[in-house]
Amino acid sequence: MHIDLSRNSSVKLYLQIAKTLADRIQSGLLPQGTKLPSVRHLSSLLAVSPVTVSKAYAELESNHLVTCTQGKGCYVAEPSVSVPREGALDLSWQMSLVDYLPRAQLWRNFNHSRQVPYSFHIAAIQPELLPTREIIADTRRLSSENPDAMAVYGTFEGDLALREVFAAHMNERGIRTVAEQLLVTSGAQQGIDLVARTFVGAGDVVYMEAPTYTGAIDVFTSRGAKVMMIPMDEQGMRIDILTRLCDTHPPKLIYTIPTFHNPTGVTLTTVRRTQLLDLAQSYHCLIVEDDPFSELFYKAKPPLSIKAHDQSGHVVYIKSFSKIVAPGCRIACVAATGSVLDRLVAAKSTADLGSPLLTQKALLPFISHRLDQHLVWLRDQMRDRLTSALHTLQRYAPPEVTWYTPEGGLNLWIKLPSVIDIPELGRLADREGISFLPGAVCYAGGMDSNHIRISFSYADKETLKTGLRKLCRLLGEQLDHSVIVERKPIL
Amino acid sequence: MHIDLSRNSSVKLYLQIAKTLADRIQSGLLPQGTKLPSVRHLSSLLAVSPVTVSKAYAELESNHLVTCTQGKGCYVAEPSVSVPREGALDLSWQMSLVDYLPRAQLWRNFNHSRQVPYSFHIAAIQPELLPTREIIADTRRLSSENPDAMAVYGTFEGDLALREVFAAHMNERGIRTVAEQLLVTSGAQQGIDLVARTFVGAGDVVYMEAPTYTGAIDVFTSRGAKVMMIPMDEQGMRIDILTRLCDTHPPKLIYTIPTFHNPTGVTLTTVRRTQLLDLAQSYHCLIVEDDPFSELFYKAKPPLSIKAHDQSGHVVYIKSFSKIVAPGCRIACVAATGSVLDRLVAAKSTADLGSPLLTQKALLPFISHRLDQHLVWLRDQMRDRLTSALHTLQRYAPPEVTWYTPEGGLNLWIKLPSVIDIPELGRLADREGISFLPGAVCYAGGMDSNHIRISFSYADKETLKTGLRKLCRLLGEQLDHSVIVERKPIL
Repeated sequence: MHIDLSRNSSVKLYLQIAKTLADRIQSGLLPQGTKLPSVRHLSSLLAVSPVTVSKAYAELESNHLVTCTQGKGCYVAEPSVSVPREGALDLSWQMSLVDYLPRAQLWRNFNHSRQVPYSFHIAAIQPELLPTREIIADTRRLSSENPDAMAVYGTFEGDLALREVFAAHMNERGIRTVAEQLLVTSGAQQGIDLVARTFVGAGDVVYMEAPTYTGAIDVFTSRGAKVMMIPMDEQGMRIDILTRLCDTHPPKLIYTIPTFHNPTGVTLTTVRRTQLLDLAQSYHCLIVEDDPFSELFYKAKPPLSIKAHDQSGHVVYIKSFSKIVAPGCRIACVAATGSVLDRLVAAKSTADLGSPLLTQKALLPFISHRLDQHLVWLRDQMRDRLTSALHTLQRYAPPEVTWYTPEGGLNLWIKLPSVIDIPELGRLADREGISFLPGAVCYAGGMDSNHIRISFSYADKETLKTGLRKLCRLLGEQLDHSVIVERKPIL
Repeated sequence: MHIDLSRNSSVKLYLQIAKTLADRIQSGLLPQGTKLPSVRHLSSLLAVSPVTVSKAYAELESNHLVTCTQGKGCYVAEPSVSVPREGALDLSWQMSLVDYLPRAQLWRNFNHSRQVPYSFHIAAIQPELLPTREIIADTRRLSSENPDAMAVYGTFEGDLALREVFAAHMNERGIRTVAEQLLVTSGAQQGIDLVARTFVGAGDVVYMEAPTYTGAIDVFTSRGAKVMMIPMDEQGMRIDILTRLCDTHPPKLIYTIPTFHNPTGVTLTTVRRTQLLDLAQSYHCLIVEDDPFSELFYKAKPPLSIKAHDQSGHVVYIKSFSKIVAPGCRIACVAATGSVLDRLVAAKSTADLGSPLLTQKALLPFISHRLDQHLVWLRDQMRDRLTSALHTLQRYAPPEVTWYTPEGGLNLWIKLPSVIDIPELGRLADREGISFLPGAVCYAGGMDSNHIRISFSYADKETLKTGLRKLCRLLGEQLDHSVIVERKPIL
């Protein structure tokens, strides 16, 4: 494995090593039972003293991530019975193959091929509520119209007709753009990844909200960025704290989900949006505005995007269309200007030569003509789920459990009393067929968190209510009911 | 921009700087008319002496890539009239935004939205020869069968049913694999990119054939690899030279296109395939076997893939299905084992959460039932094109022009006399509506090349013949006919 050490950082070297190894163990990149390199070997590899490596291993052991035995070395904790996966092949040489993946929590936490009945961990919309049948039917017309267009490579930027529709969609929402300033990507995840691979390198400072979207942390960490997380309050990211930190750690990039933030649900106020833009202008840095949810508002329309205020090309705006229309198509759109856009298109060509034309053409008719109507209906459905979820929690959750009431999006960010052992709760919930996202994966560096994220959008309403009741019962069983805490929203 | 300097390299610092800038200028990442940083500024940025930067700029000027004027500085050559692209917006700050894209020749050379009549630069199959109509029709059935499966995210590894079909396809060709050891990617390009982002970091040694696929050079260069190119003869990569170089520069990864190599068309012999595998085993390094063309053989079947000989998980095998079936679907398959596979799947999750389910489901019926039959027919068509192209060249090409006669694939690698100015030939050809790939982009570091690559597969047969005749006439006009050179195949 490759460990980036920053020798003039305020974080001690042994903690840097422990943090990187913890990230990899928690991601599953270092599976249970893996033997860590010997102290001597790792210290010579990283050019640090053996004492530094010993302290790093002790730190990991005190966090129950590894088990060390005198004379035998350190192993990733809870080894399962060792069964070579590939039959007769000897793949042991592969463990020494250095890689550059410090963390992959997405892979660890979201690749459930096994479906659970109460699936609350994935922020997606119930399949039955999406217009998939219509979209597949739309592709039928492709075969009569211009099939040969599908037999060629698309452009790197994406289908022009689709980009024109996306441009119209954005202009209706206050973003002044044209098709030529848009890039189609395979989901918002790829949009974030393209920005990172183009503009973020080892040691570059990237600011994010604390907590934030797991997949974005994976991306920036994999580029070797110095990820700094900014606390939030009920008006969104604390720009005052960010401003102070920028003094000593000038930003290369600020990643934000300003509208119905993932996972908290909080919306950044307009005042703070313009402050953030001012900050980017004075530091000549980029803002990545990730916007998966702004159409999913259940009270008032959210404020205009940061991009709508951008006069100087500082904002790279990433709009997912997968989530609200067709996850099976993996289509998002990136709006940027000038040489920032050019360089993102060049990166897209290196990454995959451009997104598939079939998925772009398949979505075109629906997004052109029926998206707005679909959104009106979808908002009603989602508002109803949210109301049900909140009612269920109010009625059944132990009083020590608190949450923020969002006005849009798909998630509830729930704070549990610190006595709750979240990994243990996860195991108990799993037995009952309930999944949730542990809050810790929404922080860089394996920070502890008393939160869990519940997505209220994937299960149908009755299943949602039943699952939440069961979860509340589990929480009740775990808690000492003698402590009564006032219930109020806490981030 | 970010320039990686290796202080203990045998390549002098000023040449490293010049090479990186040349790559970026040739890619268009530094557009014509861009002012380079002042000597003083760049020398302090890179911590080198001003003399080093001055020598780098002089090197660029002697290659006509920049124009320097006393007191005014250096500009990227042939400036067009400076028109700010974005109207009123002031985007000048963006030019100082450091990026990590050293090279993007794909973006520069392949993103032609403008179609030319004689399109010989892109190694793709004529759209009319592909089963696009059938594939789109196949998606129709999806709407009646199980549309909701499309409304969910797929797994990171890709659709299991499709991977089972891919596994069967590979097993028929001697590769012992199962669906669980395969990863679906958005084209072979993404497969290469995933391997690079996972296993290649700054300074890692990557060996490739000289010449090789442009897009692969872009990928490894963007990771900061030390790319080393190995000459070829008519049996493929010179393993003897590679072996000697490995002594002093141990490989992290060897990238090869062993079968109907792009761009030369040469096939690596079986003896050399096993030598290559032995080498990888002794150095504990990876081989990336890129296989876009093995089904497109026009004489005997090509030898078994390197992967078919792999007993120890050293080979990552990348099989494109886009090219031979449906470029509009962007589907390829990566075969790997053990923790190498696990880490590639983790990287895929970070890159884009998995390829779209729609394109995978769309290809499934055709690849399951009709691919083999399609390939028999396609080989006949392509063999016919190749024969026509060779006849036309034999008849009309000036005698100083030579080429290698491939037994498969889509390309002809043509050697021109050194008196031909290839960029000038490109401009003249463009006026006649002819495109070709200049050989130089198939080498790392902007090496000169007297070759051009002609793809004989995209234009129909009559257009192919007419276009080649016109190109031969242009070549004749450019040449001094007094020199007669024996015609023989030269790589």
